[in-house]
Amino acid sequence: MQKSTPAGRPRSDLNATVFEATLRSVRELGYAGATMDRIAAAAGVAKTTLYRRWPSKGALIVDCLIDAIGPAALEGDTRAEMLESAVRTAAARIGEPGVGAAFAGVFSDAINDPDLREILTTRFQAPYLAVLKEALRVPEQRILLVVDVVAGTLLHRLGISGRPMVESDVDALIGMVRGALD
Amino acid sequence: MQKSTPAGRPRSDLNATVFEATLRSVRELGYAGATMDRIAAAAGVAKTTLYRRWPSKGALIVDCLIDAIGPAALEGDTRAEMLESAVRTAAARIGEPGVGAAFAGVFSDAINDPDLREILTTRFQAPYLAVLKEALRVPEQRILLVVDVVAGTLLHRLGISGRPMVESDVDALIGMVRGALD
Repeated sequence: MQKSTPAGRPRSDLNATVFEATLRSVRELGYAGATMDRIAAAAGVAKTTLYRRWPSKGALIVDCLIDAIGPAALEGDTRAEMLESAVRTAAARIGEPGVGAAFAGVFSDAINDPDLREILTTRFQAPYLAVLKEALRVPEQRILLVVDVVAGTLLHRLGISGRPMVESDVDALIGMVRGALD
Repeated sequence: MQKSTPAGRPRSDLNATVFEATLRSVRELGYAGATMDRIAAAAGVAKTTLYRRWPSKGALIVDCLIDAIGPAALEGDTRAEMLESAVRTAAARIGEPGVGAAFAGVFSDAINDPDLREILTTRFQAPYLAVLKEALRVPEQRILLVVDVVAGTLLHRLGISGRPMVESDVDALIGMVRGALD
């Protein structure tokens, strides 16, 4: 059942407004600077509205990333083709303004925050893992490594260069992970 | 020439004290919580002492990481052996308490901070790049990708699991990057 905000806005509309304001705040202020106060102000909602829906900034960022990154893209008939489409889509989405910085920030925070790791593992990682296991038919341990390699590499590149990865490096990355699934 | 602090402590001793306090603060408080104030208090020095040496927290973290991670380990006679020793050493050092969180935090901050990216590129990355290019004799673009893959993967794993990567996954990672150098 859909709940309404006090102002009568449907849940999905409020989410869209908040997620857009979250990515905009991260883009303009960096992950650390995008506090719940600043995100609430950017979204034009009360901070209590945010906390009613998300218990912490980490929880909000995770839901925002799930929305921004969307389901795993697995186009094609062969394992190699599906893997290639998943990596290219991940590269494009992580390169969108605010997404990479939010992604890197929440993973960095999670190193010292077991509650946030739990949210990341169950809400963010588990659904991708299930879909990839079903499609690629390789052991879970290997899928987890491929996810670390793809996401970690793209984020590290963004951190050192401030820019998404160029196409030729995405090609080389695809070659590397393809070898890991054979 | 070595400069002394007002208290007469040699520069290298002060660095060691501050770096130890930095990693301890990151371990206990997380990257965001380890402010210059908290690091100064943990090291038992005045905040102005820190700012005389490091213009920003990012600059301090980078110097701390250079000290903690040390020079690239390139043991062995073949390219494959040298690469393997470099990856195993990187995995062990990133797994040391506080180091991974400091590393991930500074890269995450750098996405929105061009000054910090400049420090990371010139002080942190460039020396490793030069040594790896000389030893492995492959094009710079390929070395940069391998560095992103190794560091990014290890950090992403730490963020999602809170623990360093297990040996069997380090072996698989070595296999992946070895293929990229052929």
